[in-house]
Amino acid sequence: MIQHDYTFRVKYSETDKMGIVHHSNYVRYFENARWELFRSIGLPYTTIEEEGYMFPVISLHINYIQKVVYDEKLTIHTTLEKIKGVRLFFSFMVYNQDEKIVCKSQLELACVNREKWKPCSVPEFIMKILQKTRPN
Amino acid sequence: MIQHDYTFRVKYSETDKMGIVHHSNYVRYFENARWELFRSIGLPYTTIEEEGYMFPVISLHINYIQKVVYDEKLTIHTTLEKIKGVRLFFSFMVYNQDEKIVCKSQLELACVNREKWKPCSVPEFIMKILQKTRPN
Amino acid sequence: MIQHDYTFRVKYSETDKMGIVHHSNYVRYFENARWELFRSIGLPYTTIEEEGYMFPVISLHINYIQKVVYDEKLTIHTTLEKIKGVRLFFSFMVYNQDEKIVCKSQLELACVNREKWKPCSVPEFIMKILQKTRPN
Amino acid sequence: MIQHDYTFRVKYSETDKMGIVHHSNYVRYFENARWELFRSIGLPYTTIEEEGYMFPVISLHINYIQKVVYDEKLTIHTTLEKIKGVRLFFSFMVYNQDEKIVCKSQLELACVNREKWKPCSVPEFIMKILQKTRPN
Repeated sequence: MIQHDYTFRVKYSETDKMGIVHHSNYVRYFENARWELFRSIGLPYTTIEEEGYMFPVISLHINYIQKVVYDEKLTIHTTLEKIKGVRLFFSFMVYNQDEKIVCKSQLELACVNREKWKPCSVPEFIMKILQKTRPN
Repeated sequence: MIQHDYTFRVKYSETDKMGIVHHSNYVRYFENARWELFRSIGLPYTTIEEEGYMFPVISLHINYIQKVVYDEKLTIHTTLEKIKGVRLFFSFMVYNQDEKIVCKSQLELACVNREKWKPCSVPEFIMKILQKTRPN
Repeated sequence: MIQHDYTFRVKYSETDKMGIVHHSNYVRYFENARWELFRSIGLPYTTIEEEGYMFPVISLHINYIQKVVYDEKLTIHTTLEKIKGVRLFFSFMVYNQDEKIVCKSQLELACVNREKWKPCSVPEFIMKILQKTRPN
Repeated sequence: MIQHDYTFRVKYSETDKMGIVHHSNYVRYFENARWELFRSIGLPYTTIEEEGYMFPVISLHINYIQKVVYDEKLTIHTTLEKIKGVRLFFSFMVYNQDEKIVCKSQLELACVNREKWKPCSVPEFIMKILQKTRPN
């Protein structure tokens, strides 16, 4: 279980005519958050692709709890819950500046071979870094 | 239970460096699909907002089954499953040109008062049109 | 000089908190419009990439004339003005349902080799189709 | 003439199947960059809207000079060139980590009344802050 906090501001182009963040943008926020978690343990996602792997999303669940407006500063608390075979399980909690939860999500990635899109176990070089990072 | 099919092509800007549709775009496709369902029964979403209501998303679940590439023609089969109090429940099945399912989703909207974002029952003028449309 | 009209509706996710189409989306509309022009003459952009070429944008100019709101039906009148060496010159006029111009644009593409991103003349198989299509 | 540097990383969802940043995203980057310039002088764009004004884009010109890939760290050097009546003129230079220019742009905003979208002179409270900030 590895955790990371990612803080950013909502951009104008991410709002819609309701005056709030369009719900599709959270999917992008979660992507940014999980690669920042990987960067924080010395494993930028670019390295993963350069080594011949990709992590496409295979499922996601999102609960929208409170609306968020332009320029709000959000913090996403990301947890890499577990890795099981070809799958990586993440959870995300999004907090606003008042430390209220505005959104939460669970998401599943698959590890695939970049050439053939063939599912494969998360490779050794990644597992080693993850084990080194994991609090005991 | 009201159903509708919405067909469209994947745009270039919706792809990412994996060479496929970025997973966030399906959230937008589902939005387009459900308002086309409403338009098909004589109830464009603009009317709903003009009458003082909005339907923000409160939860969604997506399963990504098969990758989709640029310019593929997709059909989303949308079902308005039920309305219960302030909530509308939808399901979506996305088919490619070979009629294979590439993605599926369940999604929940809330009916809110536009001024105050206060949850409220789906208004009569909408329920009437829905009941008229519903197959017996 | 080849011309084509492309009609579509503004999507909800393309609006912003001003209540209008976010200005960045026109860049995507123009992309959709020019590949529909190519499709209309029997040359889908997928074919161009399959043959080993790409047409990245090297410059664009946009004038925003009138605001556009959710669900408006827009028509983009696209003109492939000329091809000169490695460059393709396009112009775009966007009309709303009242046939008023809401936006216009000029845009330049480069033809590049897909492997090496090396600029190269627009290939023969494309020039032939264009010449066949061009009104005298 | 007020200047500001804004640094950020390219997100995965901003790439396309060419493997580079989709050209539409620069329009969004420029928006983020100019509001960071305003924030840096004590004038977040939220304040401008709260005071009853908006700054929609009326024209833009972009030159794409070099391709940019996922995760590159870009710096946008933004200049508020001048204000003339209802118009604000900006220029942008985008640099990559090697300090090479990858993109440049000129862009014009209009100051409008938020209620009626009526063009109006940039209001006094903004002009005062700008004058105070401007190097002599």
